[in-house]
Amino acid sequence: MRAATVALAAPLSAEDQVAQSMPDASPTKWHLAHTTWFFETFLLSSQPSYRVFDETFTYLFNSYYNAIGERQPRAERGLLTRPALTTVHEYRAHVDEAMAPIVAAPSEEQATLLELGIHHEQQHQELILMDALHLLSRHPFPTPYTTAPLEPSVEQDQRWIRFGSDMAEIGHHGSGFSFDNELPRHQQLLTGFEISNRLVTNAEFAQFIADGGYHNPGWWLSDGWAAVSNRQLNRPIYWDEGTETLFDLHGTHEIDPHQPVSHLSFFEADAYARWAGARLPTEAEWEVAARQSAAEDGAARYRSGPTHHPVAATPGTTAFMGTLWEWTSSPYIAYPGFRAAPGAVGEYNGKFMNNQYVLRGGCHMTPPHHSRVTYRNFFPPHTGWQASGLRLAR
Amino acid sequence: MRAATVALAAPLSAEDQVAQSMPDASPTKWHLAHTTWFFETFLLSSQPSYRVFDETFTYLFNSYYNAIGERQPRAERGLLTRPALTTVHEYRAHVDEAMAPIVAAPSEEQATLLELGIHHEQQHQELILMDALHLLSRHPFPTPYTTAPLEPSVEQDQRWIRFGSDMAEIGHHGSGFSFDNELPRHQQLLTGFEISNRLVTNAEFAQFIADGGYHNPGWWLSDGWAAVSNRQLNRPIYWDEGTETLFDLHGTHEIDPHQPVSHLSFFEADAYARWAGARLPTEAEWEVAARQSAAEDGAARYRSGPTHHPVAATPGTTAFMGTLWEWTSSPYIAYPGFRAAPGAVGEYNGKFMNNQYVLRGGCHMTPPHHSRVTYRNFFPPHTGWQASGLRLAR
Amino acid sequence: MRAATVALAAPLSAEDQVAQSMPDASPTKWHLAHTTWFFETFLLSSQPSYRVFDETFTYLFNSYYNAIGERQPRAERGLLTRPALTTVHEYRAHVDEAMAPIVAAPSEEQATLLELGIHHEQQHQELILMDALHLLSRHPFPTPYTTAPLEPSVEQDQRWIRFGSDMAEIGHHGSGFSFDNELPRHQQLLTGFEISNRLVTNAEFAQFIADGGYHNPGWWLSDGWAAVSNRQLNRPIYWDEGTETLFDLHGTHEIDPHQPVSHLSFFEADAYARWAGARLPTEAEWEVAARQSAAEDGAARYRSGPTHHPVAATPGTTAFMGTLWEWTSSPYIAYPGFRAAPGAVGEYNGKFMNNQYVLRGGCHMTPPHHSRVTYRNFFPPHTGWQASGLRLAR
Amino acid sequence: MRAATVALAAPLSAEDQVAQSMPDASPTKWHLAHTTWFFETFLLSSQPSYRVFDETFTYLFNSYYNAIGERQPRAERGLLTRPALTTVHEYRAHVDEAMAPIVAAPSEEQATLLELGIHHEQQHQELILMDALHLLSRHPFPTPYTTAPLEPSVEQDQRWIRFGSDMAEIGHHGSGFSFDNELPRHQQLLTGFEISNRLVTNAEFAQFIADGGYHNPGWWLSDGWAAVSNRQLNRPIYWDEGTETLFDLHGTHEIDPHQPVSHLSFFEADAYARWAGARLPTEAEWEVAARQSAAEDGAARYRSGPTHHPVAATPGTTAFMGTLWEWTSSPYIAYPGFRAAPGAVGEYNGKFMNNQYVLRGGCHMTPPHHSRVTYRNFFPPHTGWQASGLRLAR
Repeated sequence: MRAATVALAAPLSAEDQVAQSMPDASPTKWHLAHTTWFFETFLLSSQPSYRVFDETFTYLFNSYYNAIGERQPRAERGLLTRPALTTVHEYRAHVDEAMAPIVAAPSEEQATLLELGIHHEQQHQELILMDALHLLSRHPFPTPYTTAPLEPSVEQDQRWIRFGSDMAEIGHHGSGFSFDNELPRHQQLLTGFEISNRLVTNAEFAQFIADGGYHNPGWWLSDGWAAVSNRQLNRPIYWDEGTETLFDLHGTHEIDPHQPVSHLSFFEADAYARWAGARLPTEAEWEVAARQSAAEDGAARYRSGPTHHPVAATPGTTAFMGTLWEWTSSPYIAYPGFRAAPGAVGEYNGKFMNNQYVLRGGCHMTPPHHSRVTYRNFFPPHTGWQASGLRLAR
Repeated sequence: MRAATVALAAPLSAEDQVAQSMPDASPTKWHLAHTTWFFETFLLSSQPSYRVFDETFTYLFNSYYNAIGERQPRAERGLLTRPALTTVHEYRAHVDEAMAPIVAAPSEEQATLLELGIHHEQQHQELILMDALHLLSRHPFPTPYTTAPLEPSVEQDQRWIRFGSDMAEIGHHGSGFSFDNELPRHQQLLTGFEISNRLVTNAEFAQFIADGGYHNPGWWLSDGWAAVSNRQLNRPIYWDEGTETLFDLHGTHEIDPHQPVSHLSFFEADAYARWAGARLPTEAEWEVAARQSAAEDGAARYRSGPTHHPVAATPGTTAFMGTLWEWTSSPYIAYPGFRAAPGAVGEYNGKFMNNQYVLRGGCHMTPPHHSRVTYRNFFPPHTGWQASGLRLAR
Repeated sequence: MRAATVALAAPLSAEDQVAQSMPDASPTKWHLAHTTWFFETFLLSSQPSYRVFDETFTYLFNSYYNAIGERQPRAERGLLTRPALTTVHEYRAHVDEAMAPIVAAPSEEQATLLELGIHHEQQHQELILMDALHLLSRHPFPTPYTTAPLEPSVEQDQRWIRFGSDMAEIGHHGSGFSFDNELPRHQQLLTGFEISNRLVTNAEFAQFIADGGYHNPGWWLSDGWAAVSNRQLNRPIYWDEGTETLFDLHGTHEIDPHQPVSHLSFFEADAYARWAGARLPTEAEWEVAARQSAAEDGAARYRSGPTHHPVAATPGTTAFMGTLWEWTSSPYIAYPGFRAAPGAVGEYNGKFMNNQYVLRGGCHMTPPHHSRVTYRNFFPPHTGWQASGLRLAR
Repeated sequence: MRAATVALAAPLSAEDQVAQSMPDASPTKWHLAHTTWFFETFLLSSQPSYRVFDETFTYLFNSYYNAIGERQPRAERGLLTRPALTTVHEYRAHVDEAMAPIVAAPSEEQATLLELGIHHEQQHQELILMDALHLLSRHPFPTPYTTAPLEPSVEQDQRWIRFGSDMAEIGHHGSGFSFDNELPRHQQLLTGFEISNRLVTNAEFAQFIADGGYHNPGWWLSDGWAAVSNRQLNRPIYWDEGTETLFDLHGTHEIDPHQPVSHLSFFEADAYARWAGARLPTEAEWEVAARQSAAEDGAARYRSGPTHHPVAATPGTTAFMGTLWEWTSSPYIAYPGFRAAPGAVGEYNGKFMNNQYVLRGGCHMTPPHHSRVTYRNFFPPHTGWQASGLRLAR
């Protein structure tokens, strides 16, 4: 897992890895250090024998844990030209070495934190790709992250999958790992609904644009319309003017009509759904549908997880996992009975439960086996730099 | 109802009534005109015999209806020194006169819009008081809105009211008026919970402050802590430094320890609840508890509604209605199956379903008979200029 | 003089007089009170027998005198709906009555301060008109300040007045009143130059626009071009889109081609001059030319000053006084040997000597006898709400 | 000269060289490329035989020349992680090679542009150091640029040098190089004045701070006081809280009391001078005094110029050159008769003549032989990141 992080950074130069393209994004180097800091802080720092690599890193590479202490302001991570990238790699090696005995024979508490640290770093693996995409896109003459060829896409018919009213079990259960925000499992009454077998495609979204979708306030939430008006938005973030080409990790290329439309904000996804006479699914509806799809898809396939193609979105099938993060209509709030863990680890998820929406499913940038049917990703409604698409419901 | 609006404006001078103290608030004169514009636009403008009072008012006094057309930017309502207040009163008389035959014998559609217009104006009656309070508070030497005496308060014991797990009916039903966002009535499964018999008091909130509540990020949502830090907040909006006096419509006076704490933001209410080892109720929990309280309280009392004391908060009893708007933990979203009405009227509620929380109950500024057990008020999480308090749940 | 201030406010309602249309402008009511506060503070407050009208006015109506104490923030003068306009008129009467014995028999120091107070209030008389113009212009359906008819204009030939190199005497001398920034009189060596007999006209400025003047960075200072680009400027502040009509105190009417172009920012005036192959005069060049023009014009005419037409710009003649404030190329700095007076009065002029340019001549809104050949008005380079035009030099 | 630029960048890593610490500062890599672009654009691009290194560099490395075309926004130079630093070094070699024949045998026009390009690059040599200092200072644990030892300083008595009233020759003359803004040479009448033999020291400035200088609005221009209040300034930019240590290119160390105080804004320099009962010199006064000092100092010394110690300020002597850029009281405006050159080169200086003040003398970061007695540097009044001090006059 640790090697995978380094491999994702490899196509980027030291210069690429130090830059911060916006306050929401972080330099690659910072991701490499922060994920290491996580293991150092939560697993090593309490070990009497552990020698701290550099005292200043507690300040430099803490992300948002108030209980740990003060930290470099988020918007100023790009000022950290020092330590050098090479030093950060030494830091990783230092921590990996110190972690080895723990990995070999963890206590129960260590096992829990180790598993959390692994899933935490996988989240940052995805962020490394998303942040790199944003940085590269802000260059006036953008260059690709990868030279891997684009996979051809296939048109897929849209159809509705029907579910009757039912009492549903929502949230994680069983012995596998989950984040605290997937708990506790609880019952929820669902009214009958239909959900699409696939994501909305680029061609379909282009019709929304051609129909004046970005110029008609009737399709938009009030805050979304304010964003469209004030920032004069007229297309998804990575589509070029003229809406015939887009930029992604493969560079600038023609928009594939059959690929799912990606990098939508919640406001864009919600407006499209209204224009299409449908709506976004709730996260509970999505979870019920995804669970059934996985079951039908065959237990074997679900257990092995989607193959990991970090830079290519595969054309949507009935599969609910691994294409794009899918916006739901559900604000990101606590499940009934949720309690954050005590201490700094409790800051992981709970304190962000405001003005964000839940996304489900994982995307082509998500590490294999990382996402789950019960996994709750979340982003604020105006951002589109994450790999997010939409599936209609009604 | 129309006379009540004018009566609420009466203590304010023409100079008071033209000023706008912040983009969220509107001048009193604007409220007087906008509520009139509502009747003119939705009921009179389609009448062939109706003579429009002033063509420019469509632009000046439209609030946010994109389907009606362009309008004066919200933050620039304070620039409307013209028309004069006296002209606005003539406008009101003109529209009232034209409305008289409709009020006497409305068609079915007219009856619906008339009822909506009445409830709409009642909402603005409350806003007139809240906005006036904000304006008066921004003066370096604030003066009261009213000389009415403060009512003495009584200490009330706190106790928990217990509810078992149950399937609840949520939302409006029956033949009475409701806004569209209270519909459709639907079932929701509630896990067992406890809810307090009364609101949190000033004395209790003062303990939170004394305990360093505004200096401990552990109690706050991340966005709330950012607001506290950036704006250096350390007390509710209308409390004076030193936290011994506050400003309200009666002027500046000592903080009554037994009164419910008012003018909290959602972030403040949520932080307090966490500090107190409890949480905010969901809106469904609140509705179930309020409905039972009303039933126990005697049908007669509930039907007649709380007496209207526009400027005095009555000490909390078990009553759930009419003291303060109570923050719930529920983001303001659509009920399952909600559909906005077609046309401009459909912009009334639905498009605001983003980054707001539901408040329930009504307050001492709410006109009598205006609120209901199913009524859903909503405000963004950072604002405290509305009369909002909190009731604990667990 | 005091009555003239009240007369200028008379066409405005109490509602007009309380509004503040931008941070740079002040409500009329504030001007009425502040000019009164000036006499109270600098002449009455030290009198043992004087009864202060209202203790809070020191805070409310201090403009920028740090030595006097804290004050209402400039951008929040529009929040002062109280005291009422009627109270401000009582305040004026109270101070006028207390001033009467001083006016009748002032000590030497009182005479100096009295004269300063009179000239101070005259400056605010001009500001009342300029600020009212801005407020009225911000209304979506602007109405005039006056119903007085527009005076017809006459085309006037442009010619150059030549001056040889010479040592010039610059600044005020003699026994008459001047502000401290007009002192000390000093010698300055001027190289030969030519200056236009009249101001640039609307027709001439329209040619600059038609020639793409607002789209060619070559004509603009770097800061000016940034303002043009960021705010997408393409015409003077009070010209309407289409550049065929403008708004002034007479309301919206056709642009008179022969009238001098007014309400230009320094950046606009400077860009025009560069486009025209000329430049702005320095303030010393302007003063030398204006002094000679006055002398030629006949001593009688100069002594009596221009007749006061507060709302009508008279077509430019050779006269240098009273048409429009004329931008010079001179940054507003101290004359050699300048010293600010000790105490609060010393804050009158000196502390503003940064990032402003000198304007000369007075305008149609300037009270009669107020301006002088040596008078130095000043504004920052980006503002155009003052009545400012330009005269070419080379 | 070209090698000197590279040598100044050498202590910085590729990661250091890509970061932009504020909109006013540029990445080192950008300086390396832009200075090369200057030669390519103004000397090579018109050569038929020249092969452009990379077409995109015209956009990437144009600084502010509107006549050349669109360019990377100044505040977004830190996004240019590509081209790599190594590519920029190849670019430098490519252009140097193409320049060789021109350098060997320039035409007259080429000789003029070549000289301009050399002086231009020297200006950027100084900026490389100033910008690196700012970047390093923004790191939470700042590290030095150099390990060279600090030179000990010596206390020097302050005395006044007196000059009588006289007609002075101001501006460049003779056959040597100058920028256009040093022309034309012209006469100016100076009133008698005194000027200090040395710069104000750290110890003297510390007295101003100890006397509450940052808390007394009486010393400050109005705009300066607004900056002090809004940004809560209480010491020079690179002094640490407690004002016992400062950060410079040598790292964090004790403040040397006898060294001239550096990195003052104009507002700070001006406030200090007022507090000290003196004033800043005008640029003409400074030039007259510096010319006489140079003459007395012996022609030999003046001709050879100060030795270049890029990172150590030498204690002030009577010398006016090479210690710190010295703020004057003169706004940066055109000399009488100034005309910008036609074409893009004309944008070099003239368009910045607004809201800046002239600094004179050069500093320890200035390349040897670069500055002159007539050299006019300029910065806006609020910035202190440049190496700027002050010398009193009266």
